[in-house]
Amino acid sequence: MSAKTDKDAPYAYGLDRVLHEKARLGIMTSLAGHPKGLAFADLKKLCDLTDGNLSRHLQVLQEAGHVAVHKGYEGNRPHTSCKLTASGRKQFLQYLDLLEKIVRDANDALEVSKVAKRKPKPA
Amino acid sequence: MSAKTDKDAPYAYGLDRVLHEKARLGIMTSLAGHPKGLAFADLKKLCDLTDGNLSRHLQVLQEAGHVAVHKGYEGNRPHTSCKLTASGRKQFLQYLDLLEKIVRDANDALEVSKVAKRKPKPA
Repeated sequence: MSAKTDKDAPYAYGLDRVLHEKARLGIMTSLAGHPKGLAFADLKKLCDLTDGNLSRHLQVLQEAGHVAVHKGYEGNRPHTSCKLTASGRKQFLQYLDLLEKIVRDANDALEVSKVAKRKPKPA
Repeated sequence: MSAKTDKDAPYAYGLDRVLHEKARLGIMTSLAGHPKGLAFADLKKLCDLTDGNLSRHLQVLQEAGHVAVHKGYEGNRPHTSCKLTASGRKQFLQYLDLLEKIVRDANDALEVSKVAKRKPKPA
């Protein structure tokens, strides 16, 4: 968040850079709906990411403490699963609140300017 | 947008990379509310950006056709003003629709998993 107040700079949005990346937004949303976690392969499919891309984004989310990654085995085969951490869930909620406010601000602004454009000139 | 259908990869969000950057999101929202345009200095203040950062982001938005930049004079002093283009406004609206859907998806997912967690074990 900027050091200035909202009133000084109402459009300096303090969006978390880790969460505000479209692939990571998809990963967080997928995991949000699966509190027991998701297998790497399922997450990859849901978000349409390559192995490399998903690994890279998961590492960023893990380093930020948003996601826990568990590398284990299912039978003899390696099996990676991921889930949101409690703090990841909390911060994602805060991020979503801000995103919602931005959508509202922007839609209001577009609406206001539409009305202003339509207003007939004084006679 | 991914070539796959939403059903295959519901969390592969096709968010426009030009618009989905937090500083540019602030710039677009500021301009959305000012159909006659904003002076560079005012925009800078509203978004709490440095001259260099604002110039760089405006260039990206201009190259994408979202924003028109006019460099002129006010008296003897150089005066730069910026406004949304018609297509910029349209694409910003589409971007906001998708963003709204994502916020809804994510909040639903978090809500569902909260309920699942709360559900008592079968007796």
